[in-house]
Amino acid sequence: MTKQLRLNAFTMNTVGHLAPGLWTHPRDRSRDYKSIRHWAELARTLERGLFDAIFIADVIGVYDTYHGNLDGAVRNAIQLPINDPLQLIPAMALVTEHLGFGVTSSVTYEHPYPFARRMSTLDHLTGGRAAWNVVTSYLDSGARAIGLPHLAVHDDRYDVAEEYLDVCYKLWERSWDDDAVIADTTRGVFADPAKVHAVHHHGRHFHVDGIHLSEPSPQRTPVIFQAGASRRGRQFAGRHAEAVFVSAPTQAILKSQVDAVRASAAAQGRHPDDIVVFSMHTAIVGETDADAHRKYDDYRRHVRQDGALTLLSGWTGIDLGKYRPDEPLRHVTTNAGQSAVEVFSSSDPARSWTIRELAEWVSIGARGPVSVGSPSTVADDLQAWAEATGVDGFNLGAVVIPETFTDAAELLVPELQRRGAFKTAYAPGTFREKLFGRTSRLDARHPGTAA
Amino acid sequence: MTKQLRLNAFTMNTVGHLAPGLWTHPRDRSRDYKSIRHWAELARTLERGLFDAIFIADVIGVYDTYHGNLDGAVRNAIQLPINDPLQLIPAMALVTEHLGFGVTSSVTYEHPYPFARRMSTLDHLTGGRAAWNVVTSYLDSGARAIGLPHLAVHDDRYDVAEEYLDVCYKLWERSWDDDAVIADTTRGVFADPAKVHAVHHHGRHFHVDGIHLSEPSPQRTPVIFQAGASRRGRQFAGRHAEAVFVSAPTQAILKSQVDAVRASAAAQGRHPDDIVVFSMHTAIVGETDADAHRKYDDYRRHVRQDGALTLLSGWTGIDLGKYRPDEPLRHVTTNAGQSAVEVFSSSDPARSWTIRELAEWVSIGARGPVSVGSPSTVADDLQAWAEATGVDGFNLGAVVIPETFTDAAELLVPELQRRGAFKTAYAPGTFREKLFGRTSRLDARHPGTAA
Repeated sequence: MTKQLRLNAFTMNTVGHLAPGLWTHPRDRSRDYKSIRHWAELARTLERGLFDAIFIADVIGVYDTYHGNLDGAVRNAIQLPINDPLQLIPAMALVTEHLGFGVTSSVTYEHPYPFARRMSTLDHLTGGRAAWNVVTSYLDSGARAIGLPHLAVHDDRYDVAEEYLDVCYKLWERSWDDDAVIADTTRGVFADPAKVHAVHHHGRHFHVDGIHLSEPSPQRTPVIFQAGASRRGRQFAGRHAEAVFVSAPTQAILKSQVDAVRASAAAQGRHPDDIVVFSMHTAIVGETDADAHRKYDDYRRHVRQDGALTLLSGWTGIDLGKYRPDEPLRHVTTNAGQSAVEVFSSSDPARSWTIRELAEWVSIGARGPVSVGSPSTVADDLQAWAEATGVDGFNLGAVVIPETFTDAAELLVPELQRRGAFKTAYAPGTFREKLFGRTSRLDARHPGTAA
Repeated sequence: MTKQLRLNAFTMNTVGHLAPGLWTHPRDRSRDYKSIRHWAELARTLERGLFDAIFIADVIGVYDTYHGNLDGAVRNAIQLPINDPLQLIPAMALVTEHLGFGVTSSVTYEHPYPFARRMSTLDHLTGGRAAWNVVTSYLDSGARAIGLPHLAVHDDRYDVAEEYLDVCYKLWERSWDDDAVIADTTRGVFADPAKVHAVHHHGRHFHVDGIHLSEPSPQRTPVIFQAGASRRGRQFAGRHAEAVFVSAPTQAILKSQVDAVRASAAAQGRHPDDIVVFSMHTAIVGETDADAHRKYDDYRRHVRQDGALTLLSGWTGIDLGKYRPDEPLRHVTTNAGQSAVEVFSSSDPARSWTIRELAEWVSIGARGPVSVGSPSTVADDLQAWAEATGVDGFNLGAVVIPETFTDAAELLVPELQRRGAFKTAYAPGTFREKLFGRTSRLDARHPGTAA
């Protein structure tokens, strides 16, 4: 049987998410990110295309590694300005019925007690369509911005995240019994006090004494997404994630990542398929291959190299502004003296990069694979990637907004449907039901169930 | 010239905001608070009625003073469950053009750096219709919930609030110059790095080093609302507030509050009319006086006394569960041994209350005045209150949701309009422009301007 693929739209409440310079394209509407109508229209487009979810990235902080300042980020709108992602969702929920909503939120900036209420509210207002992309922050500038001297070292951040989720699970899963809310208008009893329980958590990083402020939402715990690629990140994902984002430029590398995610789940008593794996992919679709390639060439003319290097410097922590565009990557070292070849080795070990090539590679596709062609060509490509790697679907990045998503919804999805490789209607129920075909609640193997 | 009154709808993302027990009324839709469509419909109703704003209260914490536990709050849905107010607004903004949006947020639970971004986002997405009701938290249970041993003493909380606003003003008003964003697609320059400035704040409670993450929103600083009635609260309002909520059961007491607010503004170098004063009022309007009184009597049958005492105990810190319903108020003492007569003295010094009378008084009207009658009767009443006290308008509380607001929009507003006492169309522009008829930005006398 043909495997049905899943599709998320990957975006951010900003001007320049992943394609530096493309905000200057005449058809690009990224600058409408401040308009609630822009987002409502995008949500309608995605639901018409039966996208599984819209996923909204976020950072608190700025990309100030390139040349050691934030000029490149300000000039090129590199994930800056960057607005709160959460507030986009209620308006998109109002105009849709099925689209899932993933929101990125870091465990660094808000105490889990009020945060748990925010997510319960989101799950209520969306009718059970909320997902949370758990991140530990990676921009040191974000920590400095709130007066922390520096980010905790990487593994410590995951320890904080473990405890943060533990607190959230207790609030979401254990504070209100399923039958606590009676809403008996005759007796005048809204809820049964014996079935509402205080959480008492006294851990290393957080203290909580109190009941959860929200009654149980359709999913209780929102669907947990995670994207950490490190060993510790993978371990965290294996334990907590119900969906994982991965990104790799070759099928071999991607397959090893997918296998590692599933192995990590299994190692922690869960099933390998308890995690839906999405991989980063950029699809540039035209009516014909030639149309698509014309589109791609047109897009490439709007790339900004200093913007691309600003983004890449922020991601890697290497100031790529110190090198000439034609210098080979092997000349580049990190602040700690490590060769940049090692940093990029997971990308494509066989390739010898120059700085300019790195910039081009990040500008359209954000270091992930790019498929350019007719609906048939791109569908072939996506099916081949899924077949070779075991991913369940794709996180589609945008080049021109909303054109990239509109093309996917209107051209690519119908082709996948013709092949039996995409749903022709949404499954009923909450986002978790739609993803797993089971219940709205965490399954019994998930650690949140035992919180 | 007839004074034009202003009207806000006062509500909360909860089942039982101000009228304990009324959620059981057959026409009450409070339990739909989890539905984003419920809120969108309410926003449409209010905009049809040319309401100035919808104001959403919030608490983090529970009402656990009554009998020393939270049974009364759980059973009667006394501001519990209580969901995040912020997320209601983007959906309401999508379906309206003019309605203002006030959101309550405490300075206790989130660092001002990410909070400032939340409010800038809200101001962007609403097209400049955002207001922030600044509160210092009053429920000790909220502090315990996040592991603080107890709330800071009252005056200290206002010192924290002063610094919190100072940080916010720096981020909102000073980080991005008005002409920082160029969005020059030809040159590929989104913003001018020389016009984006880092904030460096090192105070007693907060540290910030970084630029504001949001570009300037239509109002930059959202319209600042405040409701503190204490001496220190009034001083804070005089300095920061552009709108103030007051509440008093008699015109004489209300007038003294209004005068005190305006005097506090003047004492701090602002104009007395730099603050728009709204007073709490409940309007129960019918086609005729007899209709309205039938409605009122019907509402009263749904009041829950233990719910009312739960709410009042939480507000005052006095456990009213220790007394028999017919005991006079003079038997009641606070934990600190103070007579409750003193606590309630600002309400109506001449009146001798029993516990039962207190409960009834709080149940419909929430300790504020209640006008019951035909549109003409209620309009007379509101005009008389405004004339006698100097308030600019009213914060209308709901008894039955949305009926109380629908009646106000459909019956009361047309009557006020006939008298020339209510606008017949919204003024253009942002919420601040609508309120003051000046610019979208803080006026030069406001301390935020000099931040």
